[in-house]
Amino acid sequence: MPVQQKVRVGVVGATGYAGAELVRILLGHPGVDLTYISASTDGPGLTAFYPNLISSALPALEAFDIDRAANASDCVFVCLPSGVSGNVAVNLWKRGRKVIDLSGDLRLPADVYQAWYHHDPVECTVQSAAVYGLTEWHTDAVRQATLVANPGCYATAILLGLMPLASAGWLDGQTVHIDAKSGVSGAGRAAKLPYALSELDDNFYAYKVAAHQHTPEIEQAIEHRAPVLLTTQLLPTVRGIYACMYIPWNQDVSVNQIQGRFSECYTHQRFVHVLDTGVPQLKSVRGSNACHISWHVDERTRTLLVMSAIDNLQKGAAGQAVQNFNWMYEFSEQTALTAHGLFP
Amino acid sequence: MPVQQKVRVGVVGATGYAGAELVRILLGHPGVDLTYISASTDGPGLTAFYPNLISSALPALEAFDIDRAANASDCVFVCLPSGVSGNVAVNLWKRGRKVIDLSGDLRLPADVYQAWYHHDPVECTVQSAAVYGLTEWHTDAVRQATLVANPGCYATAILLGLMPLASAGWLDGQTVHIDAKSGVSGAGRAAKLPYALSELDDNFYAYKVAAHQHTPEIEQAIEHRAPVLLTTQLLPTVRGIYACMYIPWNQDVSVNQIQGRFSECYTHQRFVHVLDTGVPQLKSVRGSNACHISWHVDERTRTLLVMSAIDNLQKGAAGQAVQNFNWMYEFSEQTALTAHGLFP
Amino acid sequence: MPVQQKVRVGVVGATGYAGAELVRILLGHPGVDLTYISASTDGPGLTAFYPNLISSALPALEAFDIDRAANASDCVFVCLPSGVSGNVAVNLWKRGRKVIDLSGDLRLPADVYQAWYHHDPVECTVQSAAVYGLTEWHTDAVRQATLVANPGCYATAILLGLMPLASAGWLDGQTVHIDAKSGVSGAGRAAKLPYALSELDDNFYAYKVAAHQHTPEIEQAIEHRAPVLLTTQLLPTVRGIYACMYIPWNQDVSVNQIQGRFSECYTHQRFVHVLDTGVPQLKSVRGSNACHISWHVDERTRTLLVMSAIDNLQKGAAGQAVQNFNWMYEFSEQTALTAHGLFP
Amino acid sequence: MPVQQKVRVGVVGATGYAGAELVRILLGHPGVDLTYISASTDGPGLTAFYPNLISSALPALEAFDIDRAANASDCVFVCLPSGVSGNVAVNLWKRGRKVIDLSGDLRLPADVYQAWYHHDPVECTVQSAAVYGLTEWHTDAVRQATLVANPGCYATAILLGLMPLASAGWLDGQTVHIDAKSGVSGAGRAAKLPYALSELDDNFYAYKVAAHQHTPEIEQAIEHRAPVLLTTQLLPTVRGIYACMYIPWNQDVSVNQIQGRFSECYTHQRFVHVLDTGVPQLKSVRGSNACHISWHVDERTRTLLVMSAIDNLQKGAAGQAVQNFNWMYEFSEQTALTAHGLFP
Repeated sequence: MPVQQKVRVGVVGATGYAGAELVRILLGHPGVDLTYISASTDGPGLTAFYPNLISSALPALEAFDIDRAANASDCVFVCLPSGVSGNVAVNLWKRGRKVIDLSGDLRLPADVYQAWYHHDPVECTVQSAAVYGLTEWHTDAVRQATLVANPGCYATAILLGLMPLASAGWLDGQTVHIDAKSGVSGAGRAAKLPYALSELDDNFYAYKVAAHQHTPEIEQAIEHRAPVLLTTQLLPTVRGIYACMYIPWNQDVSVNQIQGRFSECYTHQRFVHVLDTGVPQLKSVRGSNACHISWHVDERTRTLLVMSAIDNLQKGAAGQAVQNFNWMYEFSEQTALTAHGLFP
Repeated sequence: MPVQQKVRVGVVGATGYAGAELVRILLGHPGVDLTYISASTDGPGLTAFYPNLISSALPALEAFDIDRAANASDCVFVCLPSGVSGNVAVNLWKRGRKVIDLSGDLRLPADVYQAWYHHDPVECTVQSAAVYGLTEWHTDAVRQATLVANPGCYATAILLGLMPLASAGWLDGQTVHIDAKSGVSGAGRAAKLPYALSELDDNFYAYKVAAHQHTPEIEQAIEHRAPVLLTTQLLPTVRGIYACMYIPWNQDVSVNQIQGRFSECYTHQRFVHVLDTGVPQLKSVRGSNACHISWHVDERTRTLLVMSAIDNLQKGAAGQAVQNFNWMYEFSEQTALTAHGLFP
Repeated sequence: MPVQQKVRVGVVGATGYAGAELVRILLGHPGVDLTYISASTDGPGLTAFYPNLISSALPALEAFDIDRAANASDCVFVCLPSGVSGNVAVNLWKRGRKVIDLSGDLRLPADVYQAWYHHDPVECTVQSAAVYGLTEWHTDAVRQATLVANPGCYATAILLGLMPLASAGWLDGQTVHIDAKSGVSGAGRAAKLPYALSELDDNFYAYKVAAHQHTPEIEQAIEHRAPVLLTTQLLPTVRGIYACMYIPWNQDVSVNQIQGRFSECYTHQRFVHVLDTGVPQLKSVRGSNACHISWHVDERTRTLLVMSAIDNLQKGAAGQAVQNFNWMYEFSEQTALTAHGLFP
Repeated sequence: MPVQQKVRVGVVGATGYAGAELVRILLGHPGVDLTYISASTDGPGLTAFYPNLISSALPALEAFDIDRAANASDCVFVCLPSGVSGNVAVNLWKRGRKVIDLSGDLRLPADVYQAWYHHDPVECTVQSAAVYGLTEWHTDAVRQATLVANPGCYATAILLGLMPLASAGWLDGQTVHIDAKSGVSGAGRAAKLPYALSELDDNFYAYKVAAHQHTPEIEQAIEHRAPVLLTTQLLPTVRGIYACMYIPWNQDVSVNQIQGRFSECYTHQRFVHVLDTGVPQLKSVRGSNACHISWHVDERTRTLLVMSAIDNLQKGAAGQAVQNFNWMYEFSEQTALTAHGLFP
């Protein structure tokens, strides 16, 4: 990285899980000056919400104010709820700030957004200006971007598994069944009964069956080559996305070709690992920006199964956001993202 | 139930999880005199292994001896590892005892068994004498049975979801993708590193991909109408099986027909519940013999998704074994099986 | 039990954890006709809140109405929040119903209650009519009782350990340090952030240090023979209370005397077990009404350590309430309470 | 830090949890060249045991050989079981290597060691050469040390809470009751039944009551000013130590004095934080080298309660070992130890 001034960075929505993870990561970034963090109201400092951050040099936690945010920051990460986040992101961007939005608001065309999110969409012209930040697959666009739509957690895990196949044309005409599981931190920091430990511990169940809003994000990213049925399920864990993708396989693509394609796509990637042996484990990627992938051809049932695991708050949110930031500001891609999974 | 003497019951393999669950259930059975429990060696009583059973009136825990078992019992539950269990079960049965075997040894033809279990099979003639004890679907056979092959835990959860469709001919010519998850107690009471809390807590991963031995059991039960790809995965929980079954759906069967079929099959069943709203949850069935099922037709991707949840040690093992026992001895089906799921 | 009509029973506050556990237990009680269950508002049936109760014959879930409750029930369990519960209980009792109140409202004198609970107390005359339902220690009073103050969960676990010593005078002049841990279901069914799985899983911490409202309940039950410092802590589990009690020991009471005293108190008790070997485990008592106790004299530091484990929703709430009910109505003490702990 | 060559570092026992945590930390240390890692046998690389370390530049995993270890390393961390570790450490140290031993073998005089550990002790003369590496309290000695006995996990959490009081003379003549809880990773990476998720999840229990081998380590560090009763208990979590210390308090030391003493000891420490408000939480320190402490005077029972939380694999093992290493080699104390706790 060239000698340069530190980038002044703001995090809007710092008390949410993705926001706090961003702060935790950015505190270790040598090129970042964390100058602004905001929540919905003024209040005690961020360590009152996250005592794990005690002893860090943190700016005061302010009620969000767009002028303050714009003045204090060169680049802003916006981590607000869908339906709010996109507008805040766009307004900051219109003031000339580089913006990375972690919500779903800037990922889809207006009509599709409205159909799956049930919110009013952000204006269309802006929508098309946002770069979809699935880093490994849109590196060049991200480098030039001033407004990034950071991918969803499910979408990230799934697309890193599907993109090598989709981009080779091998999903064309298929229907893909995706059985995905998530830790509950993906639901955000919210006092809701279904997320209580008493309700969720020792439990497991599906939700938003065939209706999860990451479905059109996935279909769009694979250029509508295959319809996708996405089943999302809650694990009794805090972090992690685990996706199993079932793809009909008619032997027209050989096992060697599949292997070659995954190698070609990911051998030189730092964060995406196609395993030689074994299968992905949630715990291997927890607390890290890594994605672990394996795949299996079952000749008996003519099915190609792809499995993928990430940490939803890292590669599925804050980690990938910083990875995109690193490209946007010409830092080495892994800056501040070198932590290995916390195992055990 | 007619006035009758209590049935003298033995449990072979009482220190394993399925065996101990059997003991726990049978202690509450008014028609059972638990006369024999055995382990691999003599030793302290069963409460040394399971302090939850303190204060129960239990027979001494003996090293297994077939003469002792046969003399002490009218009916024997055999809960030994596959490769051992079937032979013990058959030998007890040849001595005139009624036997319920909880292993996989008596569920499959010899060649199929050998191919998936990698053990020597039990002799063929006996094999064909065993009744497959998926209670709701083989009630009449179970009532007459003297030797029952109790179904596998994954197989039970999955078949209770598939049988209404398979028996109507609606799976013919399809490939079924099954994404199934299990609590780790299904692996038995064993000191193995992968099952350590340090390894498995906060974790989730697939195992035996496309190679799980319950696959042929499922295909056989649905009369080979559809090939089945089974992905088995470990949840960081103790109990529970959760299965998602993905079936191509071409509109030749209507949603009303599906609904009617599930009603027809299960409305009068005490343990199988097709939910009117919501989806199955592991926690709702934990500690009970219930199976909760729901299904969803996704017109967009032309897929029928069936979801099913059981407790692997109850409906998936000991509970269903007692349910079969109740039919064999003309007890009311729910005797000793009235516990509701432990929620929260 | 004599031939008798079933007792018509009501549960006020049936959608809370203690209330739902009561319903789950009472459904298995042969002498109970569950005639009334109420919540704060009308709404869907109880199975909408607790799908584990599907297929049970349940009365409709009604918004609480005291006339309805009194008319429908001979005996009412009241499981409302402290500050509300006691008044409802007293009003039902004044109408001639037998009442078991599971809150803390009727356990303490008015001034002590106000100091620790910060609510207005129930009127004093009534307060003194309530029998403290620590069953094993107040059996005779409970048999005659028409109004029972069911003990707190911490208090139950701790008192079952301390009472043999206190009643022998062996705590006189000592200070007792109690380090107690609870599963989070003790906090009730509430959508509060600290009880979210994302916050509490992998976590452990103290709360209400030296200020927990069960402190005066314990001191009162041991007749103020020793001041008690109670540290309460949250375990990342759903159920269970585990208490360690540290008592200075000056050799004036021998180890044999201690052993004799515990035997004398509990040998004939069905639910309290003083372990011969090993220590209590939460899992051994989970889902059961049992209390497991062990004790240890450390000569080196002259300390007597007593350990005690219960399930907070069973022996710590609903289970003990039914145990009291059984005495009040001359049922066998263990009726509907025969379940062994769910292990594993 | 002065310009210097990297230190060649070896880790003996790299497949255990403490060893792997060391590797994970050291991979991020800019002054370390990780040159040697060993296990009990040759085999696949460390990533076969710890897939979270995939893509790291790791040396081959070798069967331990003392010549290889000594030749390859300037400094060696030894993380073997007690009874073995000390001898290996001493032999490496005799060859002129700086050594940090993470076992209990070098922390106690021979006779005390033998009485609590039941192993043969390391020779006495060497024993007295080892510096006890409770970093904050022995910084000067650690800087000069060539052989460090890294403290035990329980001992670290407890001593950081007690030392300010003990060193002020305020424990003299008291008996201290310590109720301590640990995640199960403290038991090491071992296939043992009690540590299986099926056994330990939803569970909690005491072990080694009044017999834990960290007891004399604590008493020695506080110069035998007070006898200590230590109760150790297993939490159903992977990481963390939480200790509650109960100290009789006779008002001869004021609350202000206590506050002043803790400030004096820790205000300038980077890793030890005395909380202004609230209590320590395990989750706040998980994955970090931090220790959180709070204390409370209960005038009613005349007790001083001190609470302390650490991550047993970090500040309780590998983290503190690297902290000591940093002092020994004049790196900034926090090098490679800047990670904040993984919350949520």
